[in-house]
Amino acid sequence: MKNFRRRGREMVDYVADYLENIEQRPVYPDVEPGYLRSLIPTEAPLEPDNYDDIIKDVERIIMPGVTHWQSPYFFAYFPAASSYPAMLADMLCGAIGCIGFSWAASPACTELETVMLDWLGKMLKLPEHFIAGTHGHGGGVIQSTASEATLMSLLAARCKAVRRVQETNPERLEAEVLSKLVAYSSEQAHSSVERASLIGGVMMRKVPTDNTYAVGGGMLKKMLEEDRAAGLIPFYFCATLGTTSSCAFDHITELGPICNEENMWMHIDAAYAGSAFICPEFRPLLNGIEFADSFNFNPHKWLLINFDCSTMWVKKRQDIIGAFKVEPLYLKHENQESGRHWQIPLGRRFRSLKMWFVFRLYGIEGLQAHIRKQVVLAKEFESLVRADKRFEICAEVVMGLVCFRLKGSNELNQLLLKRITESRTIHLVPCQLSGLFVLRFAVCSRVTDSGHVQHAWGPSTSVSKAGPMQGRKCLVSCCRCKMS
Amino acid sequence: MKNFRRRGREMVDYVADYLENIEQRPVYPDVEPGYLRSLIPTEAPLEPDNYDDIIKDVERIIMPGVTHWQSPYFFAYFPAASSYPAMLADMLCGAIGCIGFSWAASPACTELETVMLDWLGKMLKLPEHFIAGTHGHGGGVIQSTASEATLMSLLAARCKAVRRVQETNPERLEAEVLSKLVAYSSEQAHSSVERASLIGGVMMRKVPTDNTYAVGGGMLKKMLEEDRAAGLIPFYFCATLGTTSSCAFDHITELGPICNEENMWMHIDAAYAGSAFICPEFRPLLNGIEFADSFNFNPHKWLLINFDCSTMWVKKRQDIIGAFKVEPLYLKHENQESGRHWQIPLGRRFRSLKMWFVFRLYGIEGLQAHIRKQVVLAKEFESLVRADKRFEICAEVVMGLVCFRLKGSNELNQLLLKRITESRTIHLVPCQLSGLFVLRFAVCSRVTDSGHVQHAWGPSTSVSKAGPMQGRKCLVSCCRCKMS
Repeated sequence: MKNFRRRGREMVDYVADYLENIEQRPVYPDVEPGYLRSLIPTEAPLEPDNYDDIIKDVERIIMPGVTHWQSPYFFAYFPAASSYPAMLADMLCGAIGCIGFSWAASPACTELETVMLDWLGKMLKLPEHFIAGTHGHGGGVIQSTASEATLMSLLAARCKAVRRVQETNPERLEAEVLSKLVAYSSEQAHSSVERASLIGGVMMRKVPTDNTYAVGGGMLKKMLEEDRAAGLIPFYFCATLGTTSSCAFDHITELGPICNEENMWMHIDAAYAGSAFICPEFRPLLNGIEFADSFNFNPHKWLLINFDCSTMWVKKRQDIIGAFKVEPLYLKHENQESGRHWQIPLGRRFRSLKMWFVFRLYGIEGLQAHIRKQVVLAKEFESLVRADKRFEICAEVVMGLVCFRLKGSNELNQLLLKRITESRTIHLVPCQLSGLFVLRFAVCSRVTDSGHVQHAWGPSTSVSKAGPMQGRKCLVSCCRCKMS
Repeated sequence: MKNFRRRGREMVDYVADYLENIEQRPVYPDVEPGYLRSLIPTEAPLEPDNYDDIIKDVERIIMPGVTHWQSPYFFAYFPAASSYPAMLADMLCGAIGCIGFSWAASPACTELETVMLDWLGKMLKLPEHFIAGTHGHGGGVIQSTASEATLMSLLAARCKAVRRVQETNPERLEAEVLSKLVAYSSEQAHSSVERASLIGGVMMRKVPTDNTYAVGGGMLKKMLEEDRAAGLIPFYFCATLGTTSSCAFDHITELGPICNEENMWMHIDAAYAGSAFICPEFRPLLNGIEFADSFNFNPHKWLLINFDCSTMWVKKRQDIIGAFKVEPLYLKHENQESGRHWQIPLGRRFRSLKMWFVFRLYGIEGLQAHIRKQVVLAKEFESLVRADKRFEICAEVVMGLVCFRLKGSNELNQLLLKRITESRTIHLVPCQLSGLFVLRFAVCSRVTDSGHVQHAWGPSTSVSKAGPMQGRKCLVSCCRCKMS
């Protein structure tokens, strides 16, 4: 532990230095695939290496190949949350080093998780049936990612559907029933939703969206009628609140009652947008949650809790637990009801410590301020785009994501993105909307501020000439200039 | 970052203190289910709490409910690896905070992982086809847990089997083929193996074991013949090297050729024992690996790399990648071949940093020394048991696990375990072997030494009277004394 005490303090300083000076690093690396292998021995050393050499190698080998997600110039994908309370809690979690696969394996690990999910559920004003409390039938669990939450909900729904069909038709074989089951999701849903159906071995149909890229009740209803007429069994609908491409919101107040009537499991995936529902002004977007069987979002995206922390609630935890319980003696314990059979991996870190530290050190108001600040920054970027007649906004800006493009061909926009990527000053990724190649500008880093947004758009008087960006290539609007 | 710099140093000290003094804490907590909820507010605070209060609450609320997996008196389940290099690397990983779901999302993250899996594969002397190198068709990936590795291998095998059947019989429907597929595993296999078949929606048959709790070729062959005769399609066998109950080793040199002949995927789960194969004296137990399609073990169990780090190798990575590739525009990238579609979660931490730090700071010899030391300690405990005629050893002690029991009824042994658990001085869990209730003594903590093993058995002159255990209840052999 002497080593840890000394090197741990040094690492704290290294980390603090890295994060304090991150905007001086190019946000996107300038390396070719395979760059790392030539910098590193082909085998592990027989005897210990020198610690200082390893730290030097972090700068020499690792950092040149890192895409700096925490840089204020990172506007790609969605945020990867990071904050000092979460990092501290993660250190503690690593030290305790328990594997919480059952209550007995570390009671605090299971119990803090249940209570933190209740805290967060109340912050979101979830319906009472999602809160575990001391007597509830529902409750929450931490999954690694939204992909796993989607998969678990689909598998639980599959199990429930097969049982229901076989109850009324005991002669039908499981394989035959499975072949008739149909799951549904938006054509704009995340790729992991389709993947869940491949893993679960069931059909999935993609529901077309309206002109806001959202699914409405009418379209789902029409598909259900067709499929029932064809002898199929609709059993699951995955709604998305805040799609990956454009942050569109499926109309769950219309969809929920349909799912309930049709005996279909409704899962809501709000991976990115979910965090915003802690703000009263965004909470109406979650109306309709009362019809859902399960709900998931990723605090590790937008709620300042480092990856991984994907929170999932279910209306009846027995639906999830009952689907896959396999219990050998070495896992049995008197207090089995508090055990965990809610996820694919059996082992789990003490991740709720991160939630506890972040909620207590920010407070609800601090977290709301973080969400609101990032939405304002997205609106600021939207205004810059709208003020330039060469560009267009491609979807309503509701949260921290702006979808935009140059008026003109897809090729032109691909070229624009290529120029921006090659500048390595900001980082964006594209999406496709109605066949158009669109650029996504997502406000990601906790430390992004107006100066960074202004600079991302182009050289501006609002950025101090003496600032870290001095002499750098100019950006979105400027890459355009050079393209004519 | 000022906060992180200050509080991070304090946390390093807290962690170092915790680990230095861990044996003074009762290894198993004295709390009732639900203990934590009454100690904690029902809702998150609106405004930030005081940091010092939070740290006080760690001792007041969390620690009393922790099962101390890192305590030298923890002999339950299997080890949860922990070392200072891994904890340092984890801090760095949290700071970089990238989500490595594709090469472009952070090239260093994907590339270091590939190279580290090659390093580790070479340490285990895996066949060349499991090494990625620059031109290989196989290679390794980090999964969160062995459960996920098993599931991925089963799903890949399922996909391959369906395609193969449909190639020769295009008229057969997927649902019908799925209903005929049969997977196999040892009756002693981990519960997650059966769970994988439930998730994958395929039958699984459990192969009876011989008197060493291992599966041999004859028994599998017999089942395959029966099942083929019944029109079923055997497609997958999961062999276990080092079962959870008794650390038994399936006979893969017999089983491998059968799987190859029968066109079945052979997956090898060596979750615990795999780490030992870095020692030449244990490597023969891995002979037969050349017949396997995939292989997995958990460095987060026994190779000093903190959870999670479950390493999996496949012979042909196309088998895994091809099974579930779903690729939207926002994930597409020029260097797609280096992308990752090898696991259930799309997002992933920069976990290979932990491998890199541990391998370099211990060196191969340091890791071998760790394994050997723990095996010697298990043998020491075995000798203590064998020297006491009231007890019996229930399975050969090959690695760090000793299965033992009192000669007599299951009830007697259940009572013994209950006494030991209530003493809260050491922690053990049971297993079932041939219908007998058996106690498992697994050498877990990195800091367990001979004194702890001696004390676990009973009061002994080898433990200093002034040591931390003074005045504590005595243990295994002594609990027995009081039972007559």
